[in-house]
Amino acid sequence: MIQRFFAPLASHPGALGLGDDAAFITPPAGHDLVLKTDAIVGGVHFFADDAPHTVASKALRVNLSDLAAKGAKPLGFLMSLALAREIDETWLADFAEGLRGDAVLYACPLFGGDTVRTPGPIMVSVAMFGSVPEGAMVRRAGARVGDRVFVSGSIGDAALGLALRRKQDVGKDWKLNDAQRQQLIARYLLPQPRNALAEAVRVHASAAMDVSDGLAGDFAKLCRASKVGATITAAKVPHSQAALAVLAADPAMREIALSGGDDYEIVCCVAPAKADAFRAAAKAVNVAVAEIGEIAAGEGVRFLGEDGAPLAFKHASFSHF
Amino acid sequence: MIQRFFAPLASHPGALGLGDDAAFITPPAGHDLVLKTDAIVGGVHFFADDAPHTVASKALRVNLSDLAAKGAKPLGFLMSLALAREIDETWLADFAEGLRGDAVLYACPLFGGDTVRTPGPIMVSVAMFGSVPEGAMVRRAGARVGDRVFVSGSIGDAALGLALRRKQDVGKDWKLNDAQRQQLIARYLLPQPRNALAEAVRVHASAAMDVSDGLAGDFAKLCRASKVGATITAAKVPHSQAALAVLAADPAMREIALSGGDDYEIVCCVAPAKADAFRAAAKAVNVAVAEIGEIAAGEGVRFLGEDGAPLAFKHASFSHF
Repeated sequence: MIQRFFAPLASHPGALGLGDDAAFITPPAGHDLVLKTDAIVGGVHFFADDAPHTVASKALRVNLSDLAAKGAKPLGFLMSLALAREIDETWLADFAEGLRGDAVLYACPLFGGDTVRTPGPIMVSVAMFGSVPEGAMVRRAGARVGDRVFVSGSIGDAALGLALRRKQDVGKDWKLNDAQRQQLIARYLLPQPRNALAEAVRVHASAAMDVSDGLAGDFAKLCRASKVGATITAAKVPHSQAALAVLAADPAMREIALSGGDDYEIVCCVAPAKADAFRAAAKAVNVAVAEIGEIAAGEGVRFLGEDGAPLAFKHASFSHF
Repeated sequence: MIQRFFAPLASHPGALGLGDDAAFITPPAGHDLVLKTDAIVGGVHFFADDAPHTVASKALRVNLSDLAAKGAKPLGFLMSLALAREIDETWLADFAEGLRGDAVLYACPLFGGDTVRTPGPIMVSVAMFGSVPEGAMVRRAGARVGDRVFVSGSIGDAALGLALRRKQDVGKDWKLNDAQRQQLIARYLLPQPRNALAEAVRVHASAAMDVSDGLAGDFAKLCRASKVGATITAAKVPHSQAALAVLAADPAMREIALSGGDDYEIVCCVAPAKADAFRAAAKAVNVAVAEIGEIAAGEGVRFLGEDGAPLAFKHASFSHF
């Protein structure tokens, strides 16, 4: 199975075609390694009937997104795959094709893996390593008072897509057309990590993280690590046309959009003097970035609504606002 | 949970106390990284009622053993932990204590992890990275005709221990005393990887691998990768006193001892001119090594019995002899 499905992905010579007990790589001189592991479990992070190639892509991309936010360039990955009993060769072939496509797309080859059978659900655990110039990994800690807060792409699509996926009829009230529905669902199914933005983040950002557990909660973590507060203008948070249509039809969904998960965007803080250069660098790699607020002294993140008053989120996990 | 149980293990400054999205490490100059991942699953690789600290140790040590056989020095590890629903804080505390002890013992700190809940059994996936001088990772391929074949420690204890664990009454025929029974069971429960031997292997061996799936099968893999054959003298394969007692009482167990798994010893090939230096280097680090045979031209591994005739193994997976 390994030779048939996975060895073709082990394109780096140090992977030895997955024919040895371990792999090796000569790290780029003058660089640090950046290390990350994240696992996804069937029924928890994806649906059991998701296409296998999207499961593979999601497993890689949730890790690629972290590397992007840390300013790192991917070098490769290791994978542990726990296969439920019902998994057959058709499933594996499509899964391997998804891995192969992303390994090429993100220049991130497979260095080794382990496959086990489990009586439980499928679990894909990826350990990814990348590189940054020595000492240059962008951290959560590092935001300074006055820094501008930027976020990439669009926020809330995946959380709204998950709501649609869970309960198809929820969309009736939202008056979405088919294309909009599919767009939101696709954002949940298949993250689009912003690895193209990694170098701009590394060069310009004082602090950054990827938005995987919701913008509100994740950005609060960054501010706590940096020992600062922030004010975000909710109206400046970028949303797709599909998400804007939902928010227009059902304003209560704003909290879901701002605090739901699976965006796989980057939120970062940039000193005012560097903001224009960051915008230009993002434009050069064709990634949209929006300035949404500013770092302030103290603690706590306030999201200001249209009337200038702070939004109150109901969700328990955001009680720290 | 992460801060309470696992952050204390993240002793490397680049792990940032597990408080960021990723970790970093400056690789040793002039060295390659060696990369390995191996996962263990409850009910497959360990028993559900095994003490949690031994589960943690096993998860680390199966990976440490591969690094040792490749001549690599551990640098650290990432871990994905899928927790079954019944796992409580008492379990986690003991598990973390097992990780902590081995992280110190093997100078192999935690760099990051991911914890998920699963409706299935516990799964611990470790991705470990180590270092070797550039180009010096010892491979399976590399054995040459005339090389002496060495194996560390003792072979078969874990497989016999597993047989005892599975069916306590099997030991009645074996006439073991309590200490011997416990010794065999302990070898299955808790691998003793030969990381102390890593440098001797790196300096002297032409090819090596760890013995995790049984000496007969694993060494056959090494010979195939090296495109050579070999002759092994079964009587020279080192066994513990407990295993020797079993083989005396029940000679049919020899196949289990030679082809069962979980030894976590090192089998390696050493040119005749380097054999004495290898022996001396092993002695200097207090690891027993035994010369068990010689690499030959052609293909196939023959285990010769007392009468000089090749042993015939019944087990299907060794039909390739």
